[in-house]
Amino acid sequence: MSLKMINITFPDNSVREFESGVTGLEIAGSISRRLAKEALAIGVDGEVWDLARPITHDARIQLFTWEDRQGKDTFWHSSAHLMAEAIEFFFPGVKFGIGPTVDAGFYYDIALPDGAQLTEKDLEKIEKKMLELAAQKNPIIRKDISKADAMAMFTQKQDELKQELISELADGTITIYDQGNFTDLCRGPHLPDTGYIKAVKITSLAGAYWRGNEKNRQLTRVYGITFPKQSLLEEYLLLLEEAKKRDHRKIGKEMELFTFSANVGAGLPLWLPRGTMLRLQLEEFLRNVQKRFGYEQVITPHIGNINLYATSGHLAKYGADSFQRIKTPVDGEEYMLKPMNCPHHIEIYASKPRSYKDLPVRLAEFGTVYRYEQSGELHGLTRVRGFTQDDAHLFCRPDQLKDEFKKVIDIVFIIFRTLGLDDYTAQISLRDPEKPEKYIGSPENWDKAEQAIVEAAAEKGLKTITVPGEAAFYGPKLDFMVKDALGRSWQLGTIQVDYNLPERFQLEYIGADDKRHRPVMIHRAPFGSMERFVAVLIEHTAGKFPLWLAPDQVVVLPVSDKFNDYARQVCDRLNQADIRTQIDARSEKIGRKIRDNELKRIPYLLIVGEKEAASDQVAVRRQGEGDQGAMSIPDFVTHIQNEIRSMLSEYYNN
Amino acid sequence: MSLKMINITFPDNSVREFESGVTGLEIAGSISRRLAKEALAIGVDGEVWDLARPITHDARIQLFTWEDRQGKDTFWHSSAHLMAEAIEFFFPGVKFGIGPTVDAGFYYDIALPDGAQLTEKDLEKIEKKMLELAAQKNPIIRKDISKADAMAMFTQKQDELKQELISELADGTITIYDQGNFTDLCRGPHLPDTGYIKAVKITSLAGAYWRGNEKNRQLTRVYGITFPKQSLLEEYLLLLEEAKKRDHRKIGKEMELFTFSANVGAGLPLWLPRGTMLRLQLEEFLRNVQKRFGYEQVITPHIGNINLYATSGHLAKYGADSFQRIKTPVDGEEYMLKPMNCPHHIEIYASKPRSYKDLPVRLAEFGTVYRYEQSGELHGLTRVRGFTQDDAHLFCRPDQLKDEFKKVIDIVFIIFRTLGLDDYTAQISLRDPEKPEKYIGSPENWDKAEQAIVEAAAEKGLKTITVPGEAAFYGPKLDFMVKDALGRSWQLGTIQVDYNLPERFQLEYIGADDKRHRPVMIHRAPFGSMERFVAVLIEHTAGKFPLWLAPDQVVVLPVSDKFNDYARQVCDRLNQADIRTQIDARSEKIGRKIRDNELKRIPYLLIVGEKEAASDQVAVRRQGEGDQGAMSIPDFVTHIQNEIRSMLSEYYNN
Repeated sequence: MSLKMINITFPDNSVREFESGVTGLEIAGSISRRLAKEALAIGVDGEVWDLARPITHDARIQLFTWEDRQGKDTFWHSSAHLMAEAIEFFFPGVKFGIGPTVDAGFYYDIALPDGAQLTEKDLEKIEKKMLELAAQKNPIIRKDISKADAMAMFTQKQDELKQELISELADGTITIYDQGNFTDLCRGPHLPDTGYIKAVKITSLAGAYWRGNEKNRQLTRVYGITFPKQSLLEEYLLLLEEAKKRDHRKIGKEMELFTFSANVGAGLPLWLPRGTMLRLQLEEFLRNVQKRFGYEQVITPHIGNINLYATSGHLAKYGADSFQRIKTPVDGEEYMLKPMNCPHHIEIYASKPRSYKDLPVRLAEFGTVYRYEQSGELHGLTRVRGFTQDDAHLFCRPDQLKDEFKKVIDIVFIIFRTLGLDDYTAQISLRDPEKPEKYIGSPENWDKAEQAIVEAAAEKGLKTITVPGEAAFYGPKLDFMVKDALGRSWQLGTIQVDYNLPERFQLEYIGADDKRHRPVMIHRAPFGSMERFVAVLIEHTAGKFPLWLAPDQVVVLPVSDKFNDYARQVCDRLNQADIRTQIDARSEKIGRKIRDNELKRIPYLLIVGEKEAASDQVAVRRQGEGDQGAMSIPDFVTHIQNEIRSMLSEYYNN
Repeated sequence: MSLKMINITFPDNSVREFESGVTGLEIAGSISRRLAKEALAIGVDGEVWDLARPITHDARIQLFTWEDRQGKDTFWHSSAHLMAEAIEFFFPGVKFGIGPTVDAGFYYDIALPDGAQLTEKDLEKIEKKMLELAAQKNPIIRKDISKADAMAMFTQKQDELKQELISELADGTITIYDQGNFTDLCRGPHLPDTGYIKAVKITSLAGAYWRGNEKNRQLTRVYGITFPKQSLLEEYLLLLEEAKKRDHRKIGKEMELFTFSANVGAGLPLWLPRGTMLRLQLEEFLRNVQKRFGYEQVITPHIGNINLYATSGHLAKYGADSFQRIKTPVDGEEYMLKPMNCPHHIEIYASKPRSYKDLPVRLAEFGTVYRYEQSGELHGLTRVRGFTQDDAHLFCRPDQLKDEFKKVIDIVFIIFRTLGLDDYTAQISLRDPEKPEKYIGSPENWDKAEQAIVEAAAEKGLKTITVPGEAAFYGPKLDFMVKDALGRSWQLGTIQVDYNLPERFQLEYIGADDKRHRPVMIHRAPFGSMERFVAVLIEHTAGKFPLWLAPDQVVVLPVSDKFNDYARQVCDRLNQADIRTQIDARSEKIGRKIRDNELKRIPYLLIVGEKEAASDQVAVRRQGEGDQGAMSIPDFVTHIQNEIRSMLSEYYNN
């Protein structure tokens, strides 16, 4: 009997033959024992499959490990089932809603039997049970099932939540997964068995309405996280603790950077003096960098007539779930809080005729926009209802796209390097070549734009991944992902090509051929928003900002009241040299003053007493580095200025 | 028969006896012949009277001449009657609405007989007739008249407009004025005779609805202006022409400083790159000055929950004729575009406990606010619907008021002097001592505050007038009036004490006595708003901004294409030294380039040719001053930097 053979194509485009029915696990094993151990799921023609699922046709595959999002998702998805099994063990009759993965870990929404409640002790028991079940290495088995059978199964189980879910599925597409004594309705994919799961932590409980609708019953949402190694869990818990310490909301309060007021409104930050100082420094820095790259600053209002947004298309996008329109005493006249700056910048572009020689026109604005986020989604400065984009719109000829992209990448590089964000990658989002009808703009322009981005990124030596199908309907884009000091990824900075708005607003320039042409737009915001960026910066630096950004750069500490006058004099002289200096003239012991001011994260502490006053010097302490010896005031000023200059060398040298 | 004598008190508090029935004109004559000639009206116990009206009781008087607003108003009011008489001469049966004075001159709203129209030629005839009637020196005679008689008079004249006005007056309060062949219903005051009027100009015609209501008939509004000397009219017409040239809307367009777009909305300025550059320079300048005075910058959102404005009282003030409330998807949740920054700054003050030692807290923000002006009132940048105040709120102890006032006056001085606004006065608005019930805050605090303002102004050597009864209900204030290069007055900069908002928001600080106290607030905005201030600056300088503010400071003009490369090099080097430099590389003759760029109001023109390129120099031309000789680039940079430094010396030295 001759077996059917299939061709498996690997990511490096090499092709090997396998017997039909081969599994991902077997393919991994055919490469190396290590890969067989580390693989968690397999990509088959772009879909993620169970490692145990037989492959019976020619396919392009990719193996996913813990390093890949797809690997982690599969791992945590199976872990959610494992947690469900353990919960069911202790609470027979529990009903299960949905159990998806999240950024870090997974949750399951459950309806406990009447009167039952999860206690701290229950959670410990559940964790233990999960580890016990994992150690059994129970195979996780995928089964196709008819809708009728599925319904019968969960009707018997009296789980009306699952019944509701099944009722909405199409017959012939339904699968269930078995493991040990537990069966769940599930699309997969899953690990081959529970043995992969070596470390378990149930992290928190929350209330959640069934299907997110507050008219439905409230379920208990159980959050957990699991790992393939105990050490990874320990690292994670440490990270969690460190992240808590660095929470920008906590540090923002301690350092008096920003606040919120219920009277002003949730999600509407009030920037306190120190936060404003920090933000203005960032803005000035970027403004100066951008000036060198030929950007022009503009200032536009925070509202616009709805006609503007009808033309731009935003009116449809910001509907019933947004801030509502602003009426005026004039019938039919309506304005909108601006959700984006682009239409206003377009009006400036369109305010006079443009020639091909004037392009690119680069209009920049720290533009505050307003969008109504749901109150449950608001979070410190990272999810707000009013935020200021470091926005710019570049209006250029199609042949200038690549060059403009490279220049924007340069600006992003300067920012990242200056702020010590050294670990970043970028994603290029291209159109789905199979679905040309989804996109606006000619295929030639798309080809040119995509090529421009790919080449610009390559020429700038940027580490990128390219994702076809992820482009917006109006153009391809490049997104930067930055890892902070705790290894957490933040999406910062987008460069987006746009063929749509120039079309909608009928933008034009007169070409060298004396004919009218349509410019291409690039939207770009390297910080993203000032709010989000400052939040990232706080969490990245734990509030110990680089000297040039620190709201208070220096504090003068007289060793006793006798030297307050001299300390004040030092303080004034430094402030006159534009060094942001405070004084701590409290009648406290000097050791206490040093400790308190280091806690305030002030970069330089200047201690002044008898000797310093006599010699017109200061004893310098650098935050985290201790004593730096005595210096004259002018020497200290030079020292600070040099330190700042070297921090900003990227900006000065570019 | 002994005559009744009355005591007349003069502004210098001297008292003289006059016979009862003495007129203002006679009092003026008793002082000097010149004053008798120059006096136009007399103030009697705070009311403005005809010079010819007999005074029959003890009174405090003040004589008004052309130099006083009251003098001009009287003069123009009589001129309106004179114009009416001339119009009636040519158009018998014309009906008269109201004829008030305006800033410069007067108007009369008239209803011409059916089918009649005013032509250019008519206006000339009317002007001539006015001069003829004036030359007759017809006395202008005041008469008390009963309501019935007045009604009968204007019924006979078939003037239903006047009849409508009379119907609303109380019997016993009605006066008419006769002159020559003309009688008008009028409260006065008026000149003694028409002979005072020596020069006449009918300036424009417009349509106007009777009583400003568009449901009423349309009248013709005839604007005119008159003077006591022909030379004053000539000066005025020259000024008018110059003012037209300096119109900030015209220059703003020519220099590409700002624009408006119907799509964005009327009255919502879009600041173009050059205008933004100018504005950012002004903002940075003020920010730096304020920093020295202990101000802290904050940034707050452009909307606030209506609860905030309910507390502040703004909700009632910004009602049906304003931008309407912004609803959200959440029932009952409403926001408002902020019409003022104060409530937001108050929330910042209230965000933490304050001690008497922390005061004053000085919170500053370039805060953009939105107010719905009627579309007919919008005017360039001076009347807009969105504007940015150079706002600050000082929260201080009552005993700090005077010192804070002096510091704010210092800031205003620095701004005015730095910007060459050398001609200014100030008005102190105090409470009406007769109506204490109108004001919030204790009389002791009012006494203290008023005294603080008066003393602060005096100690700063400020030329002030003091107007009792002009204070806001929540506190006294100081307003600055600035004369521009054309002698026009602009109100810029207000310093306002406020007892109301601290009360409404229950603001507190802990005093030295460990008890809770209420701080006093000062609102202040030296520029007023960036929009209005820039408009004034444009009209004051005719767009020839001081070097440090000029959006383009330097333009490099190669004498021919051969020197474009060198010119570009010069341009780059200057820009690197932060001197805003353009290049004019058009293939035009150098004379043409010089003319064009002087028209663009660029302060420095650098001409480069053979000689300059060979010696690495530039030939320097200063706008309005011509050739300044050749300089090396570093020398030119130093020259510019010194010029700017000396312009900003007020700021650097304070």
